[in-house]
Amino acid sequence: MAKLVEAITSRDVDFAKWYTDICRVADLVDYGNIKGSMIIRPYGYAIWENIQNYLDKEFKKLGHENVQMPMFIPESLLNVEKDHIEGFAPEVAWVTMGGNAPLEERMCVRPTSETLFCEHYKKIIKSYRDLPKLYNQWCTIVRWEKTTRPFLRSREILWQEGHTMHRTEEEAREETQRMFKVYEDFQRNILALPVICGRKTEKEKFAGAEETYTIEAMMYDGIALQNGTSHYFGQNFAKAFNIEFLDSDNTLKTPYQTSWGVTTRMIGGIIMTHGDDNGLVLPPKIAPIKVIFIPIGNDNKVVECIHKLGEKIKSDITYKIDNSEKSPGFKFAESEAKGIPIRVEVGPRDLEENKVTLVRRDTLEKVKVTIEEAPAKIEKLLEEIQNNLYNKAKERRDSMIYSAKTYEEFKNIAQTKAGFIKINWCGETICEEKIKEETGLKSRCIIMEEQAQGNCIICGKKALHKIYFGKQY
Amino acid sequence: MAKLVEAITSRDVDFAKWYTDICRVADLVDYGNIKGSMIIRPYGYAIWENIQNYLDKEFKKLGHENVQMPMFIPESLLNVEKDHIEGFAPEVAWVTMGGNAPLEERMCVRPTSETLFCEHYKKIIKSYRDLPKLYNQWCTIVRWEKTTRPFLRSREILWQEGHTMHRTEEEAREETQRMFKVYEDFQRNILALPVICGRKTEKEKFAGAEETYTIEAMMYDGIALQNGTSHYFGQNFAKAFNIEFLDSDNTLKTPYQTSWGVTTRMIGGIIMTHGDDNGLVLPPKIAPIKVIFIPIGNDNKVVECIHKLGEKIKSDITYKIDNSEKSPGFKFAESEAKGIPIRVEVGPRDLEENKVTLVRRDTLEKVKVTIEEAPAKIEKLLEEIQNNLYNKAKERRDSMIYSAKTYEEFKNIAQTKAGFIKINWCGETICEEKIKEETGLKSRCIIMEEQAQGNCIICGKKALHKIYFGKQY
Repeated sequence: MAKLVEAITSRDVDFAKWYTDICRVADLVDYGNIKGSMIIRPYGYAIWENIQNYLDKEFKKLGHENVQMPMFIPESLLNVEKDHIEGFAPEVAWVTMGGNAPLEERMCVRPTSETLFCEHYKKIIKSYRDLPKLYNQWCTIVRWEKTTRPFLRSREILWQEGHTMHRTEEEAREETQRMFKVYEDFQRNILALPVICGRKTEKEKFAGAEETYTIEAMMYDGIALQNGTSHYFGQNFAKAFNIEFLDSDNTLKTPYQTSWGVTTRMIGGIIMTHGDDNGLVLPPKIAPIKVIFIPIGNDNKVVECIHKLGEKIKSDITYKIDNSEKSPGFKFAESEAKGIPIRVEVGPRDLEENKVTLVRRDTLEKVKVTIEEAPAKIEKLLEEIQNNLYNKAKERRDSMIYSAKTYEEFKNIAQTKAGFIKINWCGETICEEKIKEETGLKSRCIIMEEQAQGNCIICGKKALHKIYFGKQY
Repeated sequence: MAKLVEAITSRDVDFAKWYTDICRVADLVDYGNIKGSMIIRPYGYAIWENIQNYLDKEFKKLGHENVQMPMFIPESLLNVEKDHIEGFAPEVAWVTMGGNAPLEERMCVRPTSETLFCEHYKKIIKSYRDLPKLYNQWCTIVRWEKTTRPFLRSREILWQEGHTMHRTEEEAREETQRMFKVYEDFQRNILALPVICGRKTEKEKFAGAEETYTIEAMMYDGIALQNGTSHYFGQNFAKAFNIEFLDSDNTLKTPYQTSWGVTTRMIGGIIMTHGDDNGLVLPPKIAPIKVIFIPIGNDNKVVECIHKLGEKIKSDITYKIDNSEKSPGFKFAESEAKGIPIRVEVGPRDLEENKVTLVRRDTLEKVKVTIEEAPAKIEKLLEEIQNNLYNKAKERRDSMIYSAKTYEEFKNIAQTKAGFIKINWCGETICEEKIKEETGLKSRCIIMEEQAQGNCIICGKKALHKIYFGKQY
C-alpha cells in the first residue's frame, strides 16, 4: 500500500512531477516509442470514451452528423488559405514516401481539417437547400511540438472537430456561440471545471478565423489550460476555396463557416484541477468506475452482501468489485490513486452490525451506513462529490484572480502570484505584446460580459476591453 | 426521379461501375484529394457507427478493453519481427520530416499495430497476474496500395484491431476462435452475409502469424471478399520482443498472442452482396434509418398521421420523415437508392380508407395496411427483410460453389464460371502456387469441418485438406 502512494510526488513540492506521476500511477498513459507520442491505457481511454459518448449525443441532438475525412493533406491544399498555412506549416509531420517510391507531392498528417472539409464542401454545396452543413469528425491529429507532456501537449492528439457551413452570417455566428455553450456546459456540469469563457485577441485567435472563442480552465497551480475553442470564420475559407451556393433569390452567394474542437487535453485539465497527493480525483459524472467495492477478508457473507448491493444501486452507476489477491490496504490506496469517487468497504465485523463503510474520494471522509440505506446514500454522495469538486475548484480559481490598475501593479502580481490578472486594455496588439515580452504572460481571453471603463494600463489610451492575462500550458 | 435512378449502371452490365455508382448515389463516400483516400460521408459513416456500436459491446462483454496506441512506428520497431516487416514494408507511408527538420529516424504510419502493442506489453506484463491482456483499438491504418476502390482497397482504412496476450497456448487458441466466431455471427446475423469461414494456407496467412482464420464473403459477381481475420501468433512476436512473465511456479515464461480485425471493407461487402439496380439494399439490423415516411401532398392530416405512427413504432426502430421540397417520386427513388428497408407512403386517399402503404426495399413489394396494424407489421417486415436478404444471398452463394475432381475440370470451371471451386489439396505451397500462376485463382480457405479423402488434384499425392479457390477483391 505504502509503496503505491509513495510513488506520487507531493503536488505542492513539484507540480510537474506530481502530474506525470498521476498519469503513470493511475494507469492513464504510457509513453510511446517516439518522443511526444503517448499510449492511452484502458483506464485513461475509458474517460475519453465517456467524454465522447456525452458530447457525441449533444452534437447529434443539435443536428450534427459525423463524417470521416482523409488523414493526409497534400501540401498544395494546405497552402490555399494564407493565414492558415503560416500558422500550421512549422508544426506538421510530412509524409514523403509511399512504399519505396518518393511521392510526387509531399503531404502532411492533418494538424486540423479545415482545408479538407472546404474541398469537400465545394463539391457538395450547390444550393441554399444544401445548407446548413453540420459535420463533425472524431479523429487523431498531429502537431510536431517540441516540448511535450501527456494529454497537455502531445504530438498526436485525439479530438473532435466540428465544421459547419451556413447560409447567413447570423446563423454561423449563432452556431459558433451554440457550440461554445455546449463546451462550457459540459466542462462545468460534467467535468466539474469552473471554466472562464471569452474571446481570443487578434493575436491569439486561430489561424484563418475571424473570431475565436475560448474555454480557459485554471489549473491548481494557477496556470491556464486552453480547453476548447469555437471559431467563427466568416467567409475567409469559403472565398479562398471558391465555395458558392445558389440562393433562393437566384444569385450566387458565399456561405459562412464555423469550426470547434475539444481534445484529450481535457483529461489533463481534470487531473490538474481535482487531483491531490493521493492521486487522481474523478468527478462522478465522467468516472469510468463510480463505485468500487472492496471486501475485507473472503467471508462468503461479505461476497454475497456486495453482490446484493451491486444489484440494488441504480443501473447507471457503474461499479467494480475488487476480488484480486491484493491486500485491502493496497486496494484502498489503488482506488484512491485511480480517483474512484466512492469506495465501499465491507468486512465481517461491519456485517455483524448490518453496516458497510462508504469512503468518498474527494474528502476521504468515511461514513458507516446500514446495508438498506447504502444504495440511496451512494447516489446522494455521488451528487455531493460532483458539486463539491466544482465548488472547491471555483473557490480556488476565484482566489487566484487578480485585478491590476497599473502596469507596475500587474508586474508585481505577475512576479509574486500564480493565477490570472484582469486589466483594462486598449485592444492594440502592441500593448498585448509588450506584456508578453516583459512578463511572459499571454492574454487568455477578452471578458465578454464586462464593459471596460478607464484606460489601458500599458499605453493609457481609452480601454476597449477587460481582459485576462496568465501563463499557459 | 428518373434522373436519380438512371445514374446507376446495371449490375449485370458493369459490376465495377455499378459498385462505384452506388457508393456515390447513396451518398456513402466522396473521393479525397489524394489517390486512394476517401471521405466517408454521413450516411456511410452512420453504417460504420452501427458496426462499431455492435462489435464494441460484444468485445467488452468478453472482457476486452479499448486503448489508443500511437499512429507512427519508427522503422527500427517495425523491423523487429522479420516476417512482419517483409509483409508490410512495401506498402507503408513514411514520415521523414517533422516541421522543417528531417527526422533522425523515419517512421511509418501504422499499417497494423502488432509491434506497438508488443512494445507496450513488454513494459506492463511482469507476472501471470497481469494476464490475460485483452486490448482492442479502433483507429485508422494506412497501406499504400497501388489500385484502390472505396471501402474495398483504400490507402486509409478504418478498422478495429484486437491484440491479446495469454498465459497458455490453449487460452490463446481459444481466444483466436472466440473472436473468429464473434465476427462470423456478426456478419451472418447483423450484416446478413452468408460467410464462409476457414483457415488460410501457409502462403496466405498474416505476416508473422502461426495461423490465420478468415471470413470469406462471396460477392454477387462470384468474387471473394476477405472480410475479417483472426490470427494465432503463438510466441513469434513475444520472443522477438523478449516479452516474459513470472509464472506461479516461479519460472519465467513467454506468453501466447492473438490479433483480430475487421474494417470498413465490410460496408463494401454489404453493398456487393445485397445491392441491386435501384441502389443500395441495407439489412435492417445495420441500417441507420430503418423506416422512411414519405407524405404525399402536404395535407395536415397526412403529417399528423405520420407523427402518430412514428410515436407508435418500437423505439429501437430508427425512422425518418422526409419533409423536403422534392417530389414524392424523387423521394421514392432516393429512399431506394439509399437502401432504406421500409418506405411508408401516406397520402390523403389512403387516409380516407384508414390505410398506409408499406414498400419493402428488398423485393419492392407494396402492401396496404390499416393505420392500427402498421406498427406491428413494420416490425414483422423488418425481420422478414433481414432473413430474406440472408437467404437470397446464401442461395446465390451456394449456386456458385463448384467441386473439381481433376485439374482439367478446375481449369474449365475457372474459365467459364464465377465463384469458388472446392478441391482436394496435398497442403504443399507449390501446388497452390501452380494454380494461382496458371488460373489466377488464389486459395480462399482450408475447410475446417470437412475431411479430405482422395488425392491432390495437382500433384496426385494424398490430399490433406479440402480447400476453396477463387478470385478476390
